Amino acid sequence: METVRVELGERSYDILIGRDTLCKAGESIAAFGFSRRTAIISNPTVFALYGKEVMSSLTAAGLDCFEILLPDGEEYKDFFWAYHILTGLLRKRLDRNSCIVALGGGVIGDITGFAASLYMRGIHFVQLPTTLLAQVDSSVGGKTGVNHSLGKNMIGAFHQPRLVMIDTATLKTLPERQLLCGIAEIIKYGVIWDEGLFAFMERNRAAVMGRDDAALSHIIKRSCEIKADVVSRDEREGGLRAILNFGHTLGHAVETETGYSRYLHGEAIAMGMHMAAKLSVALGLMDKGPVEKIRALLDAYGLPAELPADLDGERLAEHMKIDKKSVGGAVTFVLPDRIGTVRIHKGIDMDVVRETLRT
Amino acid sequence: METVRVELGERSYDILIGRDTLCKAGESIAAFGFSRRTAIISNPTVFALYGKEVMSSLTAAGLDCFEILLPDGEEYKDFFWAYHILTGLLRKRLDRNSCIVALGGGVIGDITGFAASLYMRGIHFVQLPTTLLAQVDSSVGGKTGVNHSLGKNMIGAFHQPRLVMIDTATLKTLPERQLLCGIAEIIKYGVIWDEGLFAFMERNRAAVMGRDDAALSHIIKRSCEIKADVVSRDEREGGLRAILNFGHTLGHAVETETGYSRYLHGEAIAMGMHMAAKLSVALGLMDKGPVEKIRALLDAYGLPAELPADLDGERLAEHMKIDKKSVGGAVTFVLPDRIGTVRIHKGIDMDVVRETLRT
Repeated sequence: METVRVELGERSYDILIGRDTLCKAGESIAAFGFSRRTAIISNPTVFALYGKEVMSSLTAAGLDCFEILLPDGEEYKDFFWAYHILTGLLRKRLDRNSCIVALGGGVIGDITGFAASLYMRGIHFVQLPTTLLAQVDSSVGGKTGVNHSLGKNMIGAFHQPRLVMIDTATLKTLPERQLLCGIAEIIKYGVIWDEGLFAFMERNRAAVMGRDDAALSHIIKRSCEIKADVVSRDEREGGLRAILNFGHTLGHAVETETGYSRYLHGEAIAMGMHMAAKLSVALGLMDKGPVEKIRALLDAYGLPAELPADLDGERLAEHMKIDKKSVGGAVTFVLPDRIGTVRIHKGIDMDVVRETLRT
Repeated sequence: METVRVELGERSYDILIGRDTLCKAGESIAAFGFSRRTAIISNPTVFALYGKEVMSSLTAAGLDCFEILLPDGEEYKDFFWAYHILTGLLRKRLDRNSCIVALGGGVIGDITGFAASLYMRGIHFVQLPTTLLAQVDSSVGGKTGVNHSLGKNMIGAFHQPRLVMIDTATLKTLPERQLLCGIAEIIKYGVIWDEGLFAFMERNRAAVMGRDDAALSHIIKRSCEIKADVVSRDEREGGLRAILNFGHTLGHAVETETGYSRYLHGEAIAMGMHMAAKLSVALGLMDKGPVEKIRALLDAYGLPAELPADLDGERLAEHMKIDKKSVGGAVTFVLPDRIGTVRIHKGIDMDVVRETLRT
């Protein structure tokens, strides 16, 4: 098993990565000495696949566990399902030293972390992420939250997990479109931080898409290390952490405009990264070479790079202005200088943005 | 105007205390340089009294303000009214640098702070507490939250305000029973930390109950200083901060048993303090003198000291066991050694507690 340490002072924690780690969850969680009664938060799809294994592991380690299931889907990541979790925890009388366990993808991880942050003003939580996207993204950094009909992730809290355990075996059952969402974020880490990771993704497409354990472990570990490195320097997104939003300014606008139904997050981010790279060129920050490399890599994995013709650039620009990352109407873009380095640019000329959206 | 500084590192803030401070709120808030659009959270009762003055002050300082009103009452301090606030903030497109202002008592302060902690994972908030209880208690320390039908303040967050402004003039319109709730907490500060404050309350009953500005300013300032002192040593209630719960173990049980309708918080705490002092004697931690002094002071102000005969001690003991401060069923009591010093005692013999409840 590989370990990535997320250094955040007294809120530091480990990410354990390997094959068949789920069956060791009980032992690892019990070692913390939390209160015995433990809630597992999941959805019926994931719980049917891995619930029994995790429950057995926790029970064998002496914990008294029960599950709270939410319906499967991003549309249930809301304030009212968070309340459902909190009510379940109160009914079972979890106390301030209790721990709750998120078993599932990003939706389960985000809403479980959110509920953990609110229950008695904060209890422990552990993440067992079962999608590649959750493994490389939401399992690191402590951003928790839920959606509101007026905006995604608008309600939330910073709350760090005590432990994350990533089992690469769970990726064997993951639908390919979901796998690609994680791939998009991994390509993002390459562009913003590590040319070597980008090159690995270029060279090892077959092994990654064939779900080879060694290849997956490598790219998950490297992604977690990069995110951990960024987050430990800027936990609350005062500055540097915003580079993780590379591709997200346009990506969020596309998701909002299409009602979060047409594209998955990673697909929207793929288009956003390609567009941000083109914007970099339009602003004279970078030559065309890296744009072509990004485009080629997205194509190789079958991720979308171009915006569909029916999306209106003017409406996308409006969505960018009201994104929660914009302050006082000024839109922030994360733009590459080359593969491996990006910088944060505030107040980019929206006419250049509109022009880039048209090309 | 008097100032109490709450020292919490980068989360430090000032409490300004004086007569007619509300009309200076705009100037003080504008000085921070938050985004212009500012929400004032209040209820119709308080807003009718002070809303115009506060709105004028904020507008004159160049802020663009609007109000969000909640119904008046503790029963509205819940998750769904917090959602109502969050929706109002999203509709008006407040951003990450925005500030929201709590104008009202503890309910408004707690739910506003809670909404501020959640909106985009945390925005600024300022407290303008208009009850004595809110001025000496909830305005210091950053505990925010809402009630759940299964328990009071079970859902919440730690989120510090950027500024608190206390206007003693607002106490002129406060009903006497509400004023006494604040008095009970001030007596608590005397017992746990400052024999001098306790003696001041003994000597200056007429001035305090006559709402003399100098007397009120003194006891508010001293109470805020004591709470600030405790909280700055233990922001997250890892240890010392629990002494602020003196009187609350039984107090919460009484409130729960009577459905939060028969007694106000301060009245329940008054009974709880008297009972805790008696428990201290029963356990041989203190002689009888201080119990009599506490009893006499509560009587002088017209606060209840004795439990009514119809409350069942066994049921109260059960409520104590499931309080959110109890961990693993062990009940914690804060017990005085003398007037001015208390200690935290975990796992007190519940038979002695039951016996004390009977006497």
